[in-house]
Amino acid sequence: MKKISLIGSTGSIGKQTLDIASAHPEEISVLGLAAGARSLDDLAEQIVEFKPLVVSVPTEDDTVSLKDRLAQRGYNLAKTRIVCGDAGLVEVATVDGLDTLVTGVVGFLGVRPTYEAIKKGTTIALANKETLVAAGSVIMPLAKKHNARIVPVDSEHSAIFQSLSGFTTRDIESIWLTGSGGPFRTWSIDEIKNATRGDALKHPNWSMGQKITIDSATMMNKGLEIIEAHWLFDLPAEKIEVLIHPQSILHSAVQFVDGSVIGQLGVPDMRLPIHYALFHPERVPSGRVPRLDLTEIAKLTFEKPDYEKFRCLKIAKEIACESSTVACVLNAANEVIVEAFLNDAIKFHTIPDHIIRVLERHKATSNPTLDDILEADRWARQEAVSLVGTPVSQ
Amino acid sequence: MKKISLIGSTGSIGKQTLDIASAHPEEISVLGLAAGARSLDDLAEQIVEFKPLVVSVPTEDDTVSLKDRLAQRGYNLAKTRIVCGDAGLVEVATVDGLDTLVTGVVGFLGVRPTYEAIKKGTTIALANKETLVAAGSVIMPLAKKHNARIVPVDSEHSAIFQSLSGFTTRDIESIWLTGSGGPFRTWSIDEIKNATRGDALKHPNWSMGQKITIDSATMMNKGLEIIEAHWLFDLPAEKIEVLIHPQSILHSAVQFVDGSVIGQLGVPDMRLPIHYALFHPERVPSGRVPRLDLTEIAKLTFEKPDYEKFRCLKIAKEIACESSTVACVLNAANEVIVEAFLNDAIKFHTIPDHIIRVLERHKATSNPTLDDILEADRWARQEAVSLVGTPVSQ
Repeated sequence: MKKISLIGSTGSIGKQTLDIASAHPEEISVLGLAAGARSLDDLAEQIVEFKPLVVSVPTEDDTVSLKDRLAQRGYNLAKTRIVCGDAGLVEVATVDGLDTLVTGVVGFLGVRPTYEAIKKGTTIALANKETLVAAGSVIMPLAKKHNARIVPVDSEHSAIFQSLSGFTTRDIESIWLTGSGGPFRTWSIDEIKNATRGDALKHPNWSMGQKITIDSATMMNKGLEIIEAHWLFDLPAEKIEVLIHPQSILHSAVQFVDGSVIGQLGVPDMRLPIHYALFHPERVPSGRVPRLDLTEIAKLTFEKPDYEKFRCLKIAKEIACESSTVACVLNAANEVIVEAFLNDAIKFHTIPDHIIRVLERHKATSNPTLDDILEADRWARQEAVSLVGTPVSQ
Repeated sequence: MKKISLIGSTGSIGKQTLDIASAHPEEISVLGLAAGARSLDDLAEQIVEFKPLVVSVPTEDDTVSLKDRLAQRGYNLAKTRIVCGDAGLVEVATVDGLDTLVTGVVGFLGVRPTYEAIKKGTTIALANKETLVAAGSVIMPLAKKHNARIVPVDSEHSAIFQSLSGFTTRDIESIWLTGSGGPFRTWSIDEIKNATRGDALKHPNWSMGQKITIDSATMMNKGLEIIEAHWLFDLPAEKIEVLIHPQSILHSAVQFVDGSVIGQLGVPDMRLPIHYALFHPERVPSGRVPRLDLTEIAKLTFEKPDYEKFRCLKIAKEIACESSTVACVLNAANEVIVEAFLNDAIKFHTIPDHIIRVLERHKATSNPTLDDILEADRWARQEAVSLVGTPVSQ
């Protein structure tokens, strides 16, 4: 029986994680859940189904609202402790007996609970890429020290992780991070200038949250994944290649030093990497993960990425291996600026311009502590808000 | 230092194996070589380069011819024992200190030396698929008993072997044996009726020996590979799927019970699986194996196989899992009948008809011994010769 906690339980990754948990009631037990204030009804339903020991919501007010909803559903409130705030998140992440923390939350919010869970030696099923992007230089040594396994949930990193089974980083010649190219792959630079919020939210293959879908449209997502891969697999940027693959079937691949390439394939469905991360190192049969039929797909295509059109990808690749606060600033600025775009405050094609402006103003700290990173994150958000004029909403 | 012997050293697999050996003089030492009588000049060159302890040729006369050639090249004959016949082959396969026997010979000839090498616990780099097709029910238990590793060199089986790293047969939902579909993939059944020897020898991707190229045109090759995979990975026929993939880039794949697919990719070059088999379980850097660039290939396509057009594939799949002499008879009959086709004695499209006729006349022995298999092989060749009127030349 795997005992899991799940941060971001009402988001896209969270719901799919619980879909797998409900398909494996004998094998997975949910000890803790945490979610935002926007979906307390969904959270209440999850609590009724999984009866976790502890649940965290953002504020005291949210705990009251949640308890009301649970009472309406006739739920025995004695079964579940309802907590809140940053301390609540950490409580969910460090509940006694936990095997695996699934970090399904989007954004910087995932860093602190992940940090605390690692200190207890808990396995991290990492879907929150910001944790490594912003704090990789702190998180990876900590995981090594406490012998905590970090199993990626991002489909690309899961593919590389799976392809590496039986081998090590020193056997790698390069890794190929695949990406669909997003909704603007075939658009010209001029056409992108007139792209609307709706255009940017139309991802060709994956069903994901809004923020990550915009990151996919700017290809910042792939840039953040380069940084994540750098930390996860201890690779320099020149060994991390981006491969545009519009069908999203080859989820990524490893080219070994002997010239052999091992890749992981599947339909674009996040339940596959989530299932893998939950049961790693075992392969447990799944009835939920849809099967791939390559004769139905018939054709897989591959292209080089266009770094001129997708400037966010270029920016991220350039700073990927700096062990400083700069990636944290990139990530924080991007969060605020994407939020501004989603609120129609700025145009799509100006996203990289705003990010560059914040990066230019930043005085990077080398080999930062977690406090340096938290401070850089705070600073970058403030700078970005001063540029795009949107408050941060989490 | 890996000490290897190589049976079939002047054939396609043999030459590529020695190409790798010459690229790794510090890591690979060649103890033994065996080759046919047709290419004694090539063999003499190989002996001069690798200075093996023992070399086998088919007949006493061939030993004399070979010694003449070596003397002409000023080679010190005291360095190498020249032997011949079946006993000579076994001597090459069982030379003292051997780590790995590479069975690059085509046809039934590879069975006996492989059998003897396994009895000494030697690792087999298996490129001779007939060994498992004809004698899998004897070879696999023997390998288990003597703790001898069998590492496939066939590109498809190597791909599956590599994709299975870190996992076991019980984690497999199915394996996907890819095949280019051969030169007649897009021909109609009527067009194939007029196919010439030249048409059948035009393989779209792989550069291989003549017999295996014809097997690729009839798709008997893929059929024999199903049988080989059955023995190698201990899988029933219903878990072995054939996937037509004209570009020969995805060399095969494993679908695991959790729905994840791991596949091995590379340019169509046999040096890759040979290199892997020689150095397994290590991944050793190779400068000889050409690198794959998927953006250059740009497109991978996949189709279902046509069992009506490729009757040899259908026949092989139907008998794949019978633990009897029937697969041995299939293999022997096919060898003779393909030889007859290469000698222009029969038409291409009649190959399956002749094979079916031999199979129909066979009284199969269940759970055969090696002697039963040798006898079934002899019988099948005789029957096939009586049908197609060609003597067996080896």
